[in-house]
Amino acid sequence: MTPGMKRRITRRMLMRAAGLGALGAGAGALVPGARASLPQTRSGLGLGVDARPYGLPSPHEAKVVRRFISWMNPTTESAVSFTPLHALEGIITPNGLHFERHHAGAPDIAPDAHRLLIHGMVERPLVFTMEDLKRFPRHSRFHFLECAGNGALEWRGAQNDAVQFTHGMIACCQWTGVLLRDVLRWCGLKDGAKWLLCESADGAGYARSLPLERALDDCLLVFAQNGEALRPEQGYPLRLLVPGCEGAASVKWLARIEVGDTPWMTREETARYTDLRPDGKARLFSLEMEANSVITDPCPENPLRRKGMHQLSGLAWSGRGRITAVDVSFDGGVNWRQAQLEEPVLPKCLTRFRMPFEWNGEEMLLQSRAVDETGYVQPDYATNRRNKGETGIYHNNSITTWHVAGNGEVTHVQLD
Amino acid sequence: MTPGMKRRITRRMLMRAAGLGALGAGAGALVPGARASLPQTRSGLGLGVDARPYGLPSPHEAKVVRRFISWMNPTTESAVSFTPLHALEGIITPNGLHFERHHAGAPDIAPDAHRLLIHGMVERPLVFTMEDLKRFPRHSRFHFLECAGNGALEWRGAQNDAVQFTHGMIACCQWTGVLLRDVLRWCGLKDGAKWLLCESADGAGYARSLPLERALDDCLLVFAQNGEALRPEQGYPLRLLVPGCEGAASVKWLARIEVGDTPWMTREETARYTDLRPDGKARLFSLEMEANSVITDPCPENPLRRKGMHQLSGLAWSGRGRITAVDVSFDGGVNWRQAQLEEPVLPKCLTRFRMPFEWNGEEMLLQSRAVDETGYVQPDYATNRRNKGETGIYHNNSITTWHVAGNGEVTHVQLD
Repeated sequence: MTPGMKRRITRRMLMRAAGLGALGAGAGALVPGARASLPQTRSGLGLGVDARPYGLPSPHEAKVVRRFISWMNPTTESAVSFTPLHALEGIITPNGLHFERHHAGAPDIAPDAHRLLIHGMVERPLVFTMEDLKRFPRHSRFHFLECAGNGALEWRGAQNDAVQFTHGMIACCQWTGVLLRDVLRWCGLKDGAKWLLCESADGAGYARSLPLERALDDCLLVFAQNGEALRPEQGYPLRLLVPGCEGAASVKWLARIEVGDTPWMTREETARYTDLRPDGKARLFSLEMEANSVITDPCPENPLRRKGMHQLSGLAWSGRGRITAVDVSFDGGVNWRQAQLEEPVLPKCLTRFRMPFEWNGEEMLLQSRAVDETGYVQPDYATNRRNKGETGIYHNNSITTWHVAGNGEVTHVQLD
Repeated sequence: MTPGMKRRITRRMLMRAAGLGALGAGAGALVPGARASLPQTRSGLGLGVDARPYGLPSPHEAKVVRRFISWMNPTTESAVSFTPLHALEGIITPNGLHFERHHAGAPDIAPDAHRLLIHGMVERPLVFTMEDLKRFPRHSRFHFLECAGNGALEWRGAQNDAVQFTHGMIACCQWTGVLLRDVLRWCGLKDGAKWLLCESADGAGYARSLPLERALDDCLLVFAQNGEALRPEQGYPLRLLVPGCEGAASVKWLARIEVGDTPWMTREETARYTDLRPDGKARLFSLEMEANSVITDPCPENPLRRKGMHQLSGLAWSGRGRITAVDVSFDGGVNWRQAQLEEPVLPKCLTRFRMPFEWNGEEMLLQSRAVDETGYVQPDYATNRRNKGETGIYHNNSITTWHVAGNGEVTHVQLD
């Protein structure tokens, strides 16, 4: 896979399809289905319950996997793999399909040997075993986790005709852990403490500074995802989760927290994970992920295969709280209709939106636009570039445009 | 594993531990943790993102698997495997750990070849492909699924000192599908239609009658669980889900629905899955799963390993709606305290409850008691047996009692 050239399509090109047709649920065109009496085939004896003590997907789903882009990464240990959003339903990402972002690969850590050191500006520097940590009150919460670089390929000019690559650096799990604030208070914070350094046990010595104020809010020391123990590539046996913030803040394989009064300015918050501006200065610690959304059906991987009724569906999220509305446009942002949000709508969590529509073979420019409870409205690409500049590669939450051709094929385009 | 003898313990045996000690969160005994400066070990290069396109648990979690009981089942194809509830957090059951109940094993069905026939008392008998079905409006909902036989081993006198075996025939997923009522109405129901026959494509020709009234309520034709396609052992590519009802009603590998005016009285709703009463008659179609709960930590697999503060945790559910309260007793039902319910609390879904307590080495009789939004209160074993009789093996929702010994070991007991 190589970066494609930008395809620019103007709204005018689509205006000839001004009469998009009734998009409401036409009762007469919902579902085909041949009248028939079925010669039922019956299966033979299937696999017994001893076949797979830990179950796996059907072999017929072998293409639903995480994928990486070979030209993007110097090695597969310092690399990204993407969640196949086009193949997923609801809001839960199965653990086996959670995107990965490593700086030195996913280490194998024995939980009995793992320790978390908390030191620096605390009354009592302490070393915690996993068993120690699990004795604090536990909390399970549904949250998305998104890499700051999600959408970066579009910023960089790569078109990426696959929602797996345009938006697949996001996942959503029910995470279980203990509140970081409970553990920090057990150690006793000293006056003047303002920042934490959170360090991984991985081969990269990955480390990030976190404002204490945020650490005392809703941050979790996580040991389980979607019911079971964390997966190795998600930080087994222990990771930090900073809800709503760029994934890089949620340090995996967490081994050390140092409490101090200034940020540490590590490589991963200076040379990387900053927003470079045209004047050469970089915006630091822009942690919160702003409201974003994408239509996952139709999308490049899910073209329209026939005319008639379809069920449009997608995902919306905000690092600042709940999604309150998602608007959908079929004509590149000229007209908008409000989509249905599926319950439960939870803060800092993926929200599934849906809208039925009828397609009669006309070209379309599909867009979705998320609004969160702070009133923030997801911006279009041009506005986003104007406000954030042309040089940064992180935090691209622009409205995505899918061009649907007359044959039903879907491609990623940018509107002027 | 063989069935153990019943161990009967009276409440009086425990009354000597009347002063159970302050159960509140004592600030002074919360967490040990040695004061230390840690010689941090750093991992080498770990696994790259190409290592597992579909991820798997850590090798250190190899014991967290579904298990079956060899003496219980004639073959592993007509058998049960149990979810490891003791090792799970939150409310989601990972797909690989969802319990199994097969009558002829889990068949391998190619989704492109699968068909659903709907016929009988309908205006238009139709055959649907998977693609046809997916064009109806989709819905994703969190629901538990529980085998009618969950807890049957206790009814039968087997003690089963493991929550995996006493309660492991339950799981909870976010299920995605289309409403059965939408599809039935597309076919057009004839006057007088009152029952459906739902038939599997498996080697057993498994089939169950379902009241039409329930089918038109919240039943789903499901094709995805926890975001991804159904697992083969959960009915890939298509199953019925009858929320809140015994799992056997949620026919897997669904291939045929016949609409009629009386139940079909199949083997699996006459010889099996009925509640046999002392007079030799059987109660039929007792579909709804009544409110139930169990403490998963501590439990036989999770003994208390040291004195001090602990975080009690468990699961509650009701087939009739939301859980409104869970009470916990430390003295075999003499005194009760209300546990904390973790959000979101959803209808016909697992609910996680939690309660901190301090343990100083005294014996305890731990119990949990669920209350649902209809006002129904989970009964104790003796009351349940009195009301439901001694002969049935299904629908045991009795309060479970864990005996905690002075050494922290936990065993399953029945109170007189």
